[in-house]
Amino acid sequence: MLMTGETLQALPGFGDLDADTFDAVEAISRMIDVPGDAVVCRQGSAPDALHYLLDGRVTLSQVAGNGDVALIDVLEPVRGIDLANVVTGQAHQVTARALTPSRLLELSAAPLRELIGRRPSLATTMLRGLSFDMTAVTRHIIDLKLRTATQRLGHYLLRLAANATSNRADFRLPLRKGLLAELIGCRQENLSRAFAVLRDCGVETHGSRVILHDIDRLRCYALPDSQAPGQTSGLSKSAEAFSNAFNLR
Amino acid sequence: MLMTGETLQALPGFGDLDADTFDAVEAISRMIDVPGDAVVCRQGSAPDALHYLLDGRVTLSQVAGNGDVALIDVLEPVRGIDLANVVTGQAHQVTARALTPSRLLELSAAPLRELIGRRPSLATTMLRGLSFDMTAVTRHIIDLKLRTATQRLGHYLLRLAANATSNRADFRLPLRKGLLAELIGCRQENLSRAFAVLRDCGVETHGSRVILHDIDRLRCYALPDSQAPGQTSGLSKSAEAFSNAFNLR
Repeated sequence: MLMTGETLQALPGFGDLDADTFDAVEAISRMIDVPGDAVVCRQGSAPDALHYLLDGRVTLSQVAGNGDVALIDVLEPVRGIDLANVVTGQAHQVTARALTPSRLLELSAAPLRELIGRRPSLATTMLRGLSFDMTAVTRHIIDLKLRTATQRLGHYLLRLAANATSNRADFRLPLRKGLLAELIGCRQENLSRAFAVLRDCGVETHGSRVILHDIDRLRCYALPDSQAPGQTSGLSKSAEAFSNAFNLR
Repeated sequence: MLMTGETLQALPGFGDLDADTFDAVEAISRMIDVPGDAVVCRQGSAPDALHYLLDGRVTLSQVAGNGDVALIDVLEPVRGIDLANVVTGQAHQVTARALTPSRLLELSAAPLRELIGRRPSLATTMLRGLSFDMTAVTRHIIDLKLRTATQRLGHYLLRLAANATSNRADFRLPLRKGLLAELIGCRQENLSRAFAVLRDCGVETHGSRVILHDIDRLRCYALPDSQAPGQTSGLSKSAEAFSNAFNLR
């Protein structure tokens, strides 16, 4: 098992901190394990900690005034959780909930903000983290605007198969289909239709099991706009590199 | 006309800077006026300046590998432009282009980053700005996921009527309809259908002129999920408050 310091060292941007700042951050950090369905932070409440997801999956959602719940994202390791509001001390705009048992690194919010106010290197680390989050949500908007629901589903399946070393992949969906429909931004009946359409691209499903028989064909269909084959997601790649390096998953 | 210092003083977070830091920021700032269609920053290029939109309108878009252009947002004053990448020095993820003749405050990027690295108060100002941007894009995702294209159009019209003091508003669309469809995230033919549906909520159009005969009814239709009547957009409100206070528009 990793110690807090080793984990912190491996978080994007934290390895560059000067030793004093690093020690100060380590002193306010701890590893926690939460069960599935645990609320990590709640919309409307003042942030008391910054959490980094190290292992597991966490949903971000927002409840509207009429009770509608919008699933904004399903975070995969390694990601900061609602960094934007923790560092500014504003109330959480979203609720983060563990979808599976999850391991988190928890940094106390008030001393963290105090440190950010005194240590420019830490502020820079936080700016990088927020910049990373902005890139992720901007991609999400583009996904919603430029792609059909079927293409978005294909894109999602490709991300799950990001580690595939051949043109074929075989895995289980990590989300139940209702949640997957919300993530993709479509109704559940349209999700079934989307899976049916993707059969022509070699996508076979049995319950939650998915087999991709032709990743290249799926990529051509789902990501006609990608910059280059294989570059489906720079974001998942850096998270993946981190996870692999530390054998967190 | 406002001087650079006065404008800077009024930008969110800049008024709180200590005098030394403020002077250092002012020394690397200047006001510029750009014509319509001017490129403020270009996707893929290294940031050379941070721009704040003070007057006018700026589009943010991203070109995909296959040439598809996604319009991500149309910025209204007062907003930082691609703050996320300027402060980290990463290549711009988006192209920002003036939709109308626009006035910008321009801060040189390299000395700005150098200052951020030495002055924690400036780093905090930037963190707040990025946090504001994150809130805006998160709302955009929710808009795309929870609302129909017709509701999104209604929401947009309500934002344009945010200053209305009665239940009625009469204004011109600031965007041509093709661009409006892209912003809403629908095809142009669906935009016409959406305007037709909104007639039942008292929305009358003549070319680019729009008359809202019943703002309350439109709000009930377009924002059934809003937290409270009138709270359609905290973001536009704070920008609005800034603009009104300084009579920038």
